[in-house]
Amino acid sequence: MLGNFTYCNPTKLYFGESALDGLKEELNKYGKNVLLVYGGGSIKKNGLYDAVIKILKECGKNVYEDGGVMPNPTSEKLIEGCERARAANADLILAVGGGSVCDYSKAVSVSAYCGGDPWEKYFIRFEEPDCKIIPVGCVLTMVGTGSEMNGGSVITNREQKLKIGHVFGENVFPKFAVLNPKITYTLPKYQMVAGIYDIMCHILEQYFSGTDDNTSDYIMEGLLRSLIHSADIAVENPEDYEARSNIMWTATWALNTLVARGKTTDWMVHMLGQSVGAYTDATHGMTLSAVSLPYYRYILPYGEEKFARYAVNVWNVNPEGKSKREVAEDGLLAMEAWMKKTGLVMNLTDLGAKPEMLDGMVKSTLIMDGGYKIFNADDVRAVLKASF
Amino acid sequence: MLGNFTYCNPTKLYFGESALDGLKEELNKYGKNVLLVYGGGSIKKNGLYDAVIKILKECGKNVYEDGGVMPNPTSEKLIEGCERARAANADLILAVGGGSVCDYSKAVSVSAYCGGDPWEKYFIRFEEPDCKIIPVGCVLTMVGTGSEMNGGSVITNREQKLKIGHVFGENVFPKFAVLNPKITYTLPKYQMVAGIYDIMCHILEQYFSGTDDNTSDYIMEGLLRSLIHSADIAVENPEDYEARSNIMWTATWALNTLVARGKTTDWMVHMLGQSVGAYTDATHGMTLSAVSLPYYRYILPYGEEKFARYAVNVWNVNPEGKSKREVAEDGLLAMEAWMKKTGLVMNLTDLGAKPEMLDGMVKSTLIMDGGYKIFNADDVRAVLKASF
Repeated sequence: MLGNFTYCNPTKLYFGESALDGLKEELNKYGKNVLLVYGGGSIKKNGLYDAVIKILKECGKNVYEDGGVMPNPTSEKLIEGCERARAANADLILAVGGGSVCDYSKAVSVSAYCGGDPWEKYFIRFEEPDCKIIPVGCVLTMVGTGSEMNGGSVITNREQKLKIGHVFGENVFPKFAVLNPKITYTLPKYQMVAGIYDIMCHILEQYFSGTDDNTSDYIMEGLLRSLIHSADIAVENPEDYEARSNIMWTATWALNTLVARGKTTDWMVHMLGQSVGAYTDATHGMTLSAVSLPYYRYILPYGEEKFARYAVNVWNVNPEGKSKREVAEDGLLAMEAWMKKTGLVMNLTDLGAKPEMLDGMVKSTLIMDGGYKIFNADDVRAVLKASF
Repeated sequence: MLGNFTYCNPTKLYFGESALDGLKEELNKYGKNVLLVYGGGSIKKNGLYDAVIKILKECGKNVYEDGGVMPNPTSEKLIEGCERARAANADLILAVGGGSVCDYSKAVSVSAYCGGDPWEKYFIRFEEPDCKIIPVGCVLTMVGTGSEMNGGSVITNREQKLKIGHVFGENVFPKFAVLNPKITYTLPKYQMVAGIYDIMCHILEQYFSGTDDNTSDYIMEGLLRSLIHSADIAVENPEDYEARSNIMWTATWALNTLVARGKTTDWMVHMLGQSVGAYTDATHGMTLSAVSLPYYRYILPYGEEKFARYAVNVWNVNPEGKSKREVAEDGLLAMEAWMKKTGLVMNLTDLGAKPEMLDGMVKSTLIMDGGYKIFNADDVRAVLKASF
């Protein structure tokens, strides 16, 4: 808890099997024009689309649609969404989907009236919004990104081969989010598992940084233990409500700004993964799992103390008779075994990456500080190479 | 995470050595009339009063004062506060103090315009406010109650020998709270330690309930480990910033509604402690420490599984070769040793309670459900008797 910080998270959450009941209450707070944003149409198959439309109609809303948001939403799609939002004169953007749909909706919310090229303004120049922001609400269908309770938005520029995230402030956070664990049951196992690793990675990127020993580290160890426990159950039985609900709740708290308060963070695994995503269009969580162990093994010597703590407090490694380095390495071995058992992708080759993409990936990897070792391009190359 | 719930906590926190800088920003959001609420005047000795007055004046506020809030704020004082708030036509109540001052300020905020007897309305009939609520902001000087980020308010009726809490909704939460760990340095050690146990007790009362195994349990184990770790440092060196800041942050998250979401809770230790407080006027945290172990030992047979988990995950009890009951009991032994080492009051006699108060205490103990054993008056008597 070193340093000064502020904390405020105004998003209202409706959680549980009946969470959608909260939507009506929220809709009444906004004007008549709602832009309904969704992805590839799975919500039309599982009944959620119909349920949401019914509530929107009951609330007397004019519904305008923006479907077809892709897994890595593009800057071109963003331009299209802004046109739709303006044409609808949207009073509310209702995102029904996973992290991509939520991220995209937030991007549209700050871009529709920004008067310029949103990609340049927010994702290259990282400016803050100084225009009208359309409020966003979420009905979450996939767990992992935490986008339902934060200001994060990741957009991909296919032409420039860049996938970049902007973390906006409280004024861009969703006003409300509807979290029904049962909605996530229909998700393919591959997507569920990728989401689980996205959660784990969010926690680890806030955990493996800094020399301070603060309350957040202990909260994160708790979140990690809960995640591992529930993931083991969900992988065996995806319809275990208790496990899926714990995973959903952990995802929200892993990345809603709480655990990062008062400490430094290291987002290099996300930077590496996003670069891989820009080249392969692979599922986000799997790009992270493929690069994580090579990254953590590369930086372990610089953060031995924390990696040893991680091994004992999260993976129950018995430290007796071992050097700190051995304890730390045993922790990563335990993590590796768990990742394989869980069905995570462990290398870039399995994601369709080719060695000839390496130069481009190195170039498009944004280097951030905060880690135990501050990277340069050679470090990036070494980790990506070891990830093939 | 069983059951449906909503979560929203709109309180904005300013944390750190420079936290008071946030006060100016917040004050600008409210009208000119500020009712400044504080306790016995320690803030006049440590310079905080002058610092706050300076900021209020810089912001052009009309300052009205309501000092002398006692450690267990009374229903008579509440009536007086309401008169002051109305006379000031207060646009904001600024609470500068610990939990009692914050609790009292929230009580005034919902009572000033309630048009009836607030004690009867909120603390006997537990009605919700249906009148104008004056916004409250806090500058916290003592850590423990969590009152800075929740809707709780505990008021004591001396005539009726009742100390009762009402947990109000989001509309009564402080709008903002200023948390500077350094402000807490001047607190006597007895008060610091009592606050630490209040935090621990808040966590335990949400932990020891229910058979579900949810993310909150893991978060609470993290909070407990952090609290024990930092308390050990702070008891040795009360001016260790890292330790005091972690304790302050843990206190907020122990009772700002997060860890109770989706699970049952058992507030009997607080009910017992509040009854003791009504009879002895003893420091709140010490009333809790005096009754805790007798209570937990009394209910342990009904919640053996959770007490064993607590022993292993919080107190590092080695479970090898022991029965579940033995593990559970060893956990409470470890907790007892830590409590004694930390300087907590371990029995009611040391708080000035007399055996002839027992009947009255039993009668004024509110019985709540949610625990591993649902109490009746005989159970209350047995635990209180064992606490002498």
